Amino acid sequence: MISVSIIGYGNVGQQLAHSFHSSENANLVQVYNRSQILPSSLPSELFINDLGQLKPADIYIISVSDRSVVEIASKLPFTDRLVVHTAGSLVFDALPDTNRRGVFYPLQTFSRSKSVDFSGLPVFVEAENEADIALLESAAKALKARVFEIDTNQRKALHVSAVFACNFSNHMYKIADDICKANNIPFDALHPLILETAQKIMSLSPSEAQTGPAIRRDEPTISAHLDFINDASKKELYELLTRSIQNG
Amino acid sequence: MISVSIIGYGNVGQQLAHSFHSSENANLVQVYNRSQILPSSLPSELFINDLGQLKPADIYIISVSDRSVVEIASKLPFTDRLVVHTAGSLVFDALPDTNRRGVFYPLQTFSRSKSVDFSGLPVFVEAENEADIALLESAAKALKARVFEIDTNQRKALHVSAVFACNFSNHMYKIADDICKANNIPFDALHPLILETAQKIMSLSPSEAQTGPAIRRDEPTISAHLDFINDASKKELYELLTRSIQNG
Repeated sequence: MISVSIIGYGNVGQQLAHSFHSSENANLVQVYNRSQILPSSLPSELFINDLGQLKPADIYIISVSDRSVVEIASKLPFTDRLVVHTAGSLVFDALPDTNRRGVFYPLQTFSRSKSVDFSGLPVFVEAENEADIALLESAAKALKARVFEIDTNQRKALHVSAVFACNFSNHMYKIADDICKANNIPFDALHPLILETAQKIMSLSPSEAQTGPAIRRDEPTISAHLDFINDASKKELYELLTRSIQNG
Repeated sequence: MISVSIIGYGNVGQQLAHSFHSSENANLVQVYNRSQILPSSLPSELFINDLGQLKPADIYIISVSDRSVVEIASKLPFTDRLVVHTAGSLVFDALPDTNRRGVFYPLQTFSRSKSVDFSGLPVFVEAENEADIALLESAAKALKARVFEIDTNQRKALHVSAVFACNFSNHMYKIADDICKANNIPFDALHPLILETAQKIMSLSPSEAQTGPAIRRDEPTISAHLDFINDASKKELYELLTRSIQNG
């Protein structure tokens, strides 16, 4: 039984808190939230808004915005305990060395309004010694997650990859939505296409799955599309992405 | 019972042929394939490789590459029958007016190696009169698809949207895969993130679903990512997409 406290109750912190609370193999000790307690299905006695009230736990997971991690970590009222953050792009030794340091990075996109199932989800861990790695692995396994041990450089690569695979592909949906709206087409007609595009990747590599006018070098269609797009920045993106697909 | 013949046995033609063949409300009359008959679970007597052998059918669906549609259509050995194509970006009056003309455009990404379920899939139809629209609707309904009647301009908009939502988001996966490979990270660790990003769109608009350093204007992370990316064209894409997200 691993004991965990969550510091920060944003998108990631909420999902972690709920998942650890409902795990049979973890004990959620406390949740720190700076602002007023939010409506939650968690028992209210778990919540604190003063770091001075933090009780002993095996792991303290800081899940606040990247830019606040270091400040929060420097205010912790104890030393020599395992403190980790959940940020994709922050080096773990950004944390002060008054405590044992590490990273617990679940690779998923978190939204307040949609709950995340950690089972099968990859969690990337880093720490300064084997004992701390083992603690982080126990925490990940309590969530039924898949654990990967990586170094800081790999985590940075992973974060950049995730920006492309998630943030930028969502922006592609956004542009599609803009074009549908401007032409009175219901965007949900694109839902099956969007799901299938993602599901294909579960069995084909992205190179194998690539379809469309760019990869088949269908210049008449590409020109017709560029003529159709009025917006200068969408046109620039269409051209650059087409060239990028063609250059492999 | 609607009778349909498929002309062209590529990615789209194969899926249409199999789906019409297994539909209770459609009769697949013939499949024309220029080259040698491919291994198929369809009865071999359905296949012809000479357009002169085409028998009567309610609808002839031409599903060859966009650039070959007009040529194939001009070789059809009959007049005044309903001939449609499946191309997103080809005007339907590109077809010769010796036959009745239309479009039967299923919005999905088709790969030879992955079979497509048409049930619930949007199919966009165009024709020159109500009777022909009704025939195309019957064909779409025989596949349990959702039918939308649109005009040529909307279909062009739809095709451009689909390029962003499907082809370009797949290219985002490809870039993520490249970065993973270069850093010894198994790409399948990104599978849950990719699926969740697509599934989110079933319940949130793309604007609501947007996360990541660009939308939260996290400049230190954006700079760190740009420093990390060596490849000039990936760097240019990262910058342009970040700016595009920020400009809404």
